[in-house]
Amino acid sequence: MVLPLPPASNTRGEHVSDAVSAQVVAEVQQFYARHMHLLDEGDAEGWARTFTEDGVFAPPSLPEPVRGREALAAGVRKSAAGLAESGEVHRHVLSMVHVDPLDDDALAVRSYAQIFATPRGGEPRLHLLCVCEDVLVRENGRLLVRERRVTRDDRP
Amino acid sequence: MVLPLPPASNTRGEHVSDAVSAQVVAEVQQFYARHMHLLDEGDAEGWARTFTEDGVFAPPSLPEPVRGREALAAGVRKSAAGLAESGEVHRHVLSMVHVDPLDDDALAVRSYAQIFATPRGGEPRLHLLCVCEDVLVRENGRLLVRERRVTRDDRP
Amino acid sequence: MVLPLPPASNTRGEHVSDAVSAQVVAEVQQFYARHMHLLDEGDAEGWARTFTEDGVFAPPSLPEPVRGREALAAGVRKSAAGLAESGEVHRHVLSMVHVDPLDDDALAVRSYAQIFATPRGGEPRLHLLCVCEDVLVRENGRLLVRERRVTRDDRP
Repeated sequence: MVLPLPPASNTRGEHVSDAVSAQVVAEVQQFYARHMHLLDEGDAEGWARTFTEDGVFAPPSLPEPVRGREALAAGVRKSAAGLAESGEVHRHVLSMVHVDPLDDDALAVRSYAQIFATPRGGEPRLHLLCVCEDVLVRENGRLLVRERRVTRDDRP
Repeated sequence: MVLPLPPASNTRGEHVSDAVSAQVVAEVQQFYARHMHLLDEGDAEGWARTFTEDGVFAPPSLPEPVRGREALAAGVRKSAAGLAESGEVHRHVLSMVHVDPLDDDALAVRSYAQIFATPRGGEPRLHLLCVCEDVLVRENGRLLVRERRVTRDDRP
Repeated sequence: MVLPLPPASNTRGEHVSDAVSAQVVAEVQQFYARHMHLLDEGDAEGWARTFTEDGVFAPPSLPEPVRGREALAAGVRKSAAGLAESGEVHRHVLSMVHVDPLDDDALAVRSYAQIFATPRGGEPRLHLLCVCEDVLVRENGRLLVRERRVTRDDRP
């Protein structure tokens, strides 16, 4: 719980400031909103295309990271099928999103992820609280996830 | 749950991008923050004035959309009276807000709405998870809701 | 619940608008994200340094406001020790953040605070819903909290 979070330096030990440009912050917010809408609607291919071609996602539930758009899309198809069968809707909400510019135009982004679940005809519940650490890069002007590492608060 | 969400085009089939201006994204965020503060404090007239004069709100709980500021304000007065009687506070939180510019300066905004409820002296709870689809327009320089459609995750 | 929220004026009665600059909104968002990451990781000194030297925090749980960085840090150390002992992780999420510029470069910021708690190996829960009213000031170019007043929705 009391992790060694470097408050004023990025992962390379450089000093960072909160003064990243508003345009970059807004782009990151727009990016994540669409990214999560795609995920929660079960658009597996659309969501996978918000990663780089060789994008890596290290979720807490798997022993090995998922690599590449094909594998990423397959994971969403499987999850969406499970949710359809159980009659649940999941919503992924990122909050307290902090953007740290790295060199070469990449961005280190740390956020909290709340996952809400609602069964058909039932009460919504808070399913999971996670911390999400992304490296975003720009390709042809658009942001993409190159690396994602997610940790669950119930498994510290 | 697996809805046909067009990931790269708006409702008129035009290609959209995440590169809406930071100024517009910030204005939308400021707009919604004030809009929800007014709603949750029960300021019925103040909230209704954040819609256009003939603004339409299609909530999931009513068979017909609510039309116009007078009817919108009446709905809030009724809700606020019910909450006062039950001793509950509701908070409306929008998240994963995505802004798509339409033509003629209007904005299509899609977001998740979490409604939290806290009884006096009791534990807070997650009351509802919804998807909120707005069309915002600008009048005299200020953003206003022209149309709102809300769907509940428990009634897919 | 139905508080006299002045929708179109700040605490000094001046007319306010939603048109604060995108750069200021983005800075406030970056500031709060880092501020809450520091708090939730238990970095007491790092968090205290996001207040002014004589910063004041009036939480709902204490009869008197906490004043100054030393006392602020001591409060976090105590909370972090309690959480470590109980094996819980807390996450502080601010939402519906509204920024009102005051004169002399200060900012009045009103937001909702959701506090989520996750026990080790257990289910996450919504712990508290609060309203957070801050005055932020700029020192050497960086935003800092000069005053914070928090009210709990369960104690109206």
